[in-house]
Amino acid sequence: MDKTPKVVEQILRGEVRAAARLMRELDDGEPASREILKNLYRHGGRAHILGITGFPGVGKSTLTDRLIQYLRREGKTVGVVAVDPTSPFSGGAILGDRIRMQRHALDEGVFIRSLATRGHFGGLTASARAVITVLDAMGKDYVLVETVGVGQDEVEIAATAYTTIVVTVPGLGDDIQAIKAGILEVADILVVNKADREGASRVYQDLLRMLELRAKGGESAWRPPVLLTQAKDDQGIAELMGAVQQHQEFLQGDQAAFQAARISRVRQEFLELLKEGVFRQLLRQLTADGRLQGVLQEILARRNDPYSASEALIQDILGGG
Amino acid sequence: MDKTPKVVEQILRGEVRAAARLMRELDDGEPASREILKNLYRHGGRAHILGITGFPGVGKSTLTDRLIQYLRREGKTVGVVAVDPTSPFSGGAILGDRIRMQRHALDEGVFIRSLATRGHFGGLTASARAVITVLDAMGKDYVLVETVGVGQDEVEIAATAYTTIVVTVPGLGDDIQAIKAGILEVADILVVNKADREGASRVYQDLLRMLELRAKGGESAWRPPVLLTQAKDDQGIAELMGAVQQHQEFLQGDQAAFQAARISRVRQEFLELLKEGVFRQLLRQLTADGRLQGVLQEILARRNDPYSASEALIQDILGGG
Repeated sequence: MDKTPKVVEQILRGEVRAAARLMRELDDGEPASREILKNLYRHGGRAHILGITGFPGVGKSTLTDRLIQYLRREGKTVGVVAVDPTSPFSGGAILGDRIRMQRHALDEGVFIRSLATRGHFGGLTASARAVITVLDAMGKDYVLVETVGVGQDEVEIAATAYTTIVVTVPGLGDDIQAIKAGILEVADILVVNKADREGASRVYQDLLRMLELRAKGGESAWRPPVLLTQAKDDQGIAELMGAVQQHQEFLQGDQAAFQAARISRVRQEFLELLKEGVFRQLLRQLTADGRLQGVLQEILARRNDPYSASEALIQDILGGG
Repeated sequence: MDKTPKVVEQILRGEVRAAARLMRELDDGEPASREILKNLYRHGGRAHILGITGFPGVGKSTLTDRLIQYLRREGKTVGVVAVDPTSPFSGGAILGDRIRMQRHALDEGVFIRSLATRGHFGGLTASARAVITVLDAMGKDYVLVETVGVGQDEVEIAATAYTTIVVTVPGLGDDIQAIKAGILEVADILVVNKADREGASRVYQDLLRMLELRAKGGESAWRPPVLLTQAKDDQGIAELMGAVQQHQEFLQGDQAAFQAARISRVRQEFLELLKEGVFRQLLRQLTADGRLQGVLQEILARRNDPYSASEALIQDILGGG
């Protein structure tokens, strides 16, 4: 009870050690850490959250690395959450890459936190959001969230950033199609990385055409720009950050749009916690009273089916309507 | 009420048109289709469900294509569920690939169903399982489930197959690391595809070493084999199907292991439906009575936080414990 405010103060002052310890405790599921998180949440809301998503191999991590470098040169503080099994930040890279990333490890203005895609079953999204909350409370100007744009959860995390960058590269062939399939909808900015590769201008044109089709739907005043980068050679980074800042200004200038973005983030955050929490509590109850075991045996014997069984249980708990 | 049994009979007889129509109706959320699904579930449980997972670009779809071909030659019937934005089955491929896949379209013994990775928010896994249920009820000998092994949901779907094949290729560098991070745990069979590429034997050795480490944990009597394939050139397919059949025989021979696999599948299936169902019903209630809007406003104003708000609500609905 009286340790809590001290930790909160330390983190609000941006103390790295206190933040790292809290994140470990959150991972371990310590109840006290959750109380601190609640407290921190109410102090947050300042950071600009930037999502970076795309297929494995498009160079998201290199791009993230360059964005960190750029922002640090501008005097901004940066937090990074990597939810990507292929990210060097997550330890999933060849040695060269990993060493290159480590250069930020000694910079007090950068805090990097990696989350494995697995091993947090049912909890990856929640873990990512908790880390974002801590980084925001630490006073970071920018929180970069790198996710691999394939899984549903991963795309959702990136999509709830204030500004979402979707990265692609020439030569994947099927990549554009995959973007069409849904990732395009979450993009505020589109990046064609590895722009020195053959086919870059075709991908660029394709994306422009697709955006044009989308614009006719007319649901937003923001027109996502398409940018060419070569993150490896540090090219196009200033332009990309320029686009990010334009999007930030757009949000700030259009109070209705900004409020909509904030409500959408909070709604998603709250509903995810509610969903996981209700399920966890329910599972505990069903396991404790033996009901789960009984239902599973009935289904295994094909005397019942999971659809009917879950419906009956839901009716029982929440009633109809 | 009296249309239901006829459709059920048609599907149990393996009629393609009735099955395709039901899948469309399930997608559209028609209540009657759900009743039919319940009925079908109780007639299922015969098909051997085979999961095929791995990163984009490892050649999962080509491998799936070859497995279909092989199984058809053996006189087996095959159902395919593709949950992979990069899969030619899902329409996310360059034209050549897609045409190659279409050759099965005229074969009555093959039924292919694609699911987009997005656009079914909260429901992708449920959609995939429903399709598996229908294919199983149709009497397919094998149901192949192709998922991209990156997202949590996608890996989970593959993991609940009776036999899960994890595919990798040489030259990804970080791929092995990513497999280490969690995908290895779900593999019953490991495949190094594109085995003519440089580095194949190194990947092969690495995987063997990793499996050795895992075997020391000693939780299972099954030792996952590592196989080399060149799906493009139809090489290694017979050996792969040989390994699948060995795993099938292992499961059938070891009643305890088979029962454990079945319980694990049913448990996952039921709990996913329960989780989604409870959440959907709860969201409906919270929206209808205005509670959701009120909570979100409090959180936005930072007078409350999503952690406290969800906990209070859960306590309210389910009580403590």
